[in-house]
Amino acid sequence: MTSIHWRETVAQKRKEQAATIPKNWILENLPSNEILNVVDFPEKCGLLTFKDIAITNTEVDVLLEKLANGIWSSVEVTTAFSKRAVIAHQLVNCLTEIFIDRALARAAELDNHLKTTGKVVGPLHGSNLMRLPISLKDQINIKGIDSTMGYVSWVGKPAAKNALLVDILEECGAVLYVKTNIPQTLMWPETFNHVFGRTSNPYNRTLTSGGSSGGEGALVALRGSPIGIGSDIGGSVRIPSAFNGIYGLRGSYGRIPYAGCVNSMEGQDSILSVLGPLTNSIAGVKAFTKAVVAKKPWLKDPLAVRKPWSEDEYKLVDHGNGTKLCFAVLWNDGVTVPHPPVTRGLVETKHALLAAGHQVIDWTPLKHEEFYKAAGAIWGAAAAEDYRVATAPSGEPVVASMELSAEDLSVLPTNSVPSFRPPANGISAYELWQVQKKKRDIRQEYLDHWNATAAVTGTGRPVDAIISPCAAYVAPPHGMNKSAGYTTIWNVLDYTALVIPTGLSVDLTIDSPRPAHAFLNPADKTNYEFYNPVTFKDAPITIQVVGRTLEEEAIIAMGEIVDAALKKHLTISPSNL
Amino acid sequence: MTSIHWRETVAQKRKEQAATIPKNWILENLPSNEILNVVDFPEKCGLLTFKDIAITNTEVDVLLEKLANGIWSSVEVTTAFSKRAVIAHQLVNCLTEIFIDRALARAAELDNHLKTTGKVVGPLHGSNLMRLPISLKDQINIKGIDSTMGYVSWVGKPAAKNALLVDILEECGAVLYVKTNIPQTLMWPETFNHVFGRTSNPYNRTLTSGGSSGGEGALVALRGSPIGIGSDIGGSVRIPSAFNGIYGLRGSYGRIPYAGCVNSMEGQDSILSVLGPLTNSIAGVKAFTKAVVAKKPWLKDPLAVRKPWSEDEYKLVDHGNGTKLCFAVLWNDGVTVPHPPVTRGLVETKHALLAAGHQVIDWTPLKHEEFYKAAGAIWGAAAAEDYRVATAPSGEPVVASMELSAEDLSVLPTNSVPSFRPPANGISAYELWQVQKKKRDIRQEYLDHWNATAAVTGTGRPVDAIISPCAAYVAPPHGMNKSAGYTTIWNVLDYTALVIPTGLSVDLTIDSPRPAHAFLNPADKTNYEFYNPVTFKDAPITIQVVGRTLEEEAIIAMGEIVDAALKKHLTISPSNL
Repeated sequence: MTSIHWRETVAQKRKEQAATIPKNWILENLPSNEILNVVDFPEKCGLLTFKDIAITNTEVDVLLEKLANGIWSSVEVTTAFSKRAVIAHQLVNCLTEIFIDRALARAAELDNHLKTTGKVVGPLHGSNLMRLPISLKDQINIKGIDSTMGYVSWVGKPAAKNALLVDILEECGAVLYVKTNIPQTLMWPETFNHVFGRTSNPYNRTLTSGGSSGGEGALVALRGSPIGIGSDIGGSVRIPSAFNGIYGLRGSYGRIPYAGCVNSMEGQDSILSVLGPLTNSIAGVKAFTKAVVAKKPWLKDPLAVRKPWSEDEYKLVDHGNGTKLCFAVLWNDGVTVPHPPVTRGLVETKHALLAAGHQVIDWTPLKHEEFYKAAGAIWGAAAAEDYRVATAPSGEPVVASMELSAEDLSVLPTNSVPSFRPPANGISAYELWQVQKKKRDIRQEYLDHWNATAAVTGTGRPVDAIISPCAAYVAPPHGMNKSAGYTTIWNVLDYTALVIPTGLSVDLTIDSPRPAHAFLNPADKTNYEFYNPVTFKDAPITIQVVGRTLEEEAIIAMGEIVDAALKKHLTISPSNL
Repeated sequence: MTSIHWRETVAQKRKEQAATIPKNWILENLPSNEILNVVDFPEKCGLLTFKDIAITNTEVDVLLEKLANGIWSSVEVTTAFSKRAVIAHQLVNCLTEIFIDRALARAAELDNHLKTTGKVVGPLHGSNLMRLPISLKDQINIKGIDSTMGYVSWVGKPAAKNALLVDILEECGAVLYVKTNIPQTLMWPETFNHVFGRTSNPYNRTLTSGGSSGGEGALVALRGSPIGIGSDIGGSVRIPSAFNGIYGLRGSYGRIPYAGCVNSMEGQDSILSVLGPLTNSIAGVKAFTKAVVAKKPWLKDPLAVRKPWSEDEYKLVDHGNGTKLCFAVLWNDGVTVPHPPVTRGLVETKHALLAAGHQVIDWTPLKHEEFYKAAGAIWGAAAAEDYRVATAPSGEPVVASMELSAEDLSVLPTNSVPSFRPPANGISAYELWQVQKKKRDIRQEYLDHWNATAAVTGTGRPVDAIISPCAAYVAPPHGMNKSAGYTTIWNVLDYTALVIPTGLSVDLTIDSPRPAHAFLNPADKTNYEFYNPVTFKDAPITIQVVGRTLEEEAIIAMGEIVDAALKKHLTISPSNL
């Protein structure tokens, strides 16, 4: 149990991982470290055929149609995404487990079934995801494959059985081919662990890909996967979606079945982690959510909610049929004022929605800091013990910072202090109950606060959805993602939250620093001073659309409205702030 | 803060309570303590008119119809139930707060609205509960009225606002008129506290009415309320329903809104208390559940599940449309073998269901003892601290036993030890998480176990519902309800569980003691030796019908099937064991 021991385990695991990459997909012409934005590289590197590029650039709904019609075979599609995933991995280190042979064998089987039965949609092909490759965050168990979750002590312990979601995805006809990188413990909004190392942001490799589903975020952004499945307890689907400029849904507790995944802090029953999709279009979010819910996951997962997909809710029956919605913009949470690019994203979204005939008012935040404190206290109640138990067998240290070290390829100067570390010693069950009671009370206050907006919307209804930042900044440099408040708030409230890319990214000419404002607190000042558009060059700008608990259908529908409005608005008349 | 102080508070509170009883409803001809079964007394005491008796003996669906058609006015119905409630209270001490004047004023207002608008169902009358009196367990807040929950220190602190359910019931047109007795802490399956004393069982006053909704159970059994609302964290709706021979539903976490009630152990987020109805017919269970869910409680209670009433689920679409169901009988839980009357109830139910053309197989229990231990550990994690905090301000002791003391009217010899007391000191949050993790794992095992029955039912489906005892015994003597395993199991699993009276009660000629069996453990032996039909004379025999999580609609429908089958069977051919 010496430090040499765990490093040897890591070396061996990395060697095994390297061996799973098809040799002729290993690139010699990788961009040098000085090339920060590598988003365009996959299409230029020479490995992808024109067809591979066409396939991997196609949105999920069209992909599914072409697969169903036999225009593209599953082997073709799986090959294209596998190649692009491997390219992505060489650029930003986003994969953990790679099992392309197995995936291609399954794809061939599915194609063969289609050929022999002649059925466009064969019964074995399941509902909506037939023959589509789907990537999975490392923690989602596939029988026979490791789920190390970045813990050295979990290396070489392949899962005994599939997570329920894996069974469901396979019943739906999906093809699984890679798993993706995470931070040790999962409880960081960045992605680094001793086993697989660090995942970088493809738009700017000095920036973090976010976390904890950071491998998925980077992979999907590089179009190495049409749909990736992550998990989210405080923003872990949405932060990588936001930082990598893609779509990501955090549904409510239990809407998507979690059974059979590994996780941190198991037995923590108060603020639950949920699984959700990261993808390049809302069509992908909808296809995944609808397909999984259609399989009635509550029949097999005791924590899954018995709630079928509701077409009425998707048609926004409770929101005036979606004809004239009232959105409310959360400009800042009363704790940290967002950086200029984040605000620009909100402003453009507001203009887009107004142009589309909807109403937009301001959202008044209520006690956000109390929610953050509650989340920290609940997770911190016993997190340190949990991490110690998981790391002790190998002797690896608990990661204390996500900052770059000399071991990394490049080193950025930072002056920050570690965050996201729980107190070394937990609290008593009684103390935990008191925090949880407080949390329940402020959840009630927040819902009352939302309902009270009925008096000011002019629609006769309370605000239909909140438009929120995803963070106070766009993707920051490695080690600098110190706060997940703008996502965590919706986890504590158990609200449905969908990340939508605005299509904008940091622009050195537009996103100049603002004059100093009256700082809300010392951290707000630090955050203000931290801003410099050059630091965040090319980082995508995204927003969250937030609905109530178990409003997945309505939020997907409203997301479609926001997305269409943004696309139309930015084509016609982008504001220049 | 001396013991004199809290006794004075109690004396004052009892005086105030006595003053709320209309003077001409105070009976001089109460049965003496030697009269154990007082169920028939209300109709014989002379206070009730023929019409009062007709009204209070009418089942909820017919009552609602007659109210809707104006055949009976709300004032008439409210008066009849108020009188009978006050009679019940004088027999078994079941009420806490009594506010009949207020109720009659509201009833008159509702009647007047009907008269002036001429509308049979006026818009102000809400959906399904118009002008029906409904009683509430003490913990359910009504603005301006105490919710002491049996704590002396909470006396004289009227609620600042209504619980959400109270608002909803009033929107539905219900008339609230009394609140009912509970044990101190709510965490006992009997009913005694220092403020209001003990509630007895109307079928045999040496027996407990159960708890914690014991006041409701006794009140409804005496037909002093058409529907009473209790709460259930380990059996607190179902034990009183079972012991008093009435219907009671424990729905899943969050199906009925809990917001705005007071409670014990707040912040305990793992095994949640739920509200549910106690009533004299399944029609009452259905009317209440459907009416409350129709009000979309999730819009106002952050913990209420967004799940509308499903007519498909009520029509048993997922259970072969209910034509040939497969029930499985839990004969014993592997921990305690039920007493002969309990087994007789199960046998008759089996025969009734077979006669009705359904299938009945045996249910194999799985790890029930582990579930009981998990529940004990989770509640015990900090319960003692919780109780100390609630009792400390007044100086009243924490109740250590439900046994009769010299202070009681009659004294029964018992040789039992106190149970249901949490360890004096709680555990750490980490330890709590480990128990909660274990609980999650065994919930998964139990669901897998249920699904595996698809291989043996012959219907192609897993077992449709479980038929379970409500306890290892029928209502036991005061102080002797030491175990709530047969109800708690379904709380930990979050399964829907409905108590149905078989129509049978303990019969000295049929329910003889059985020869000793091979005891499962020392407690099983104690329980066996405890049995003697004379002790349990007249106690009602009931069963539970148990479905999966959030299957309220299906379990109400299957309950109707079981109930009808029992009524038919016992009219035609009761078995004599």
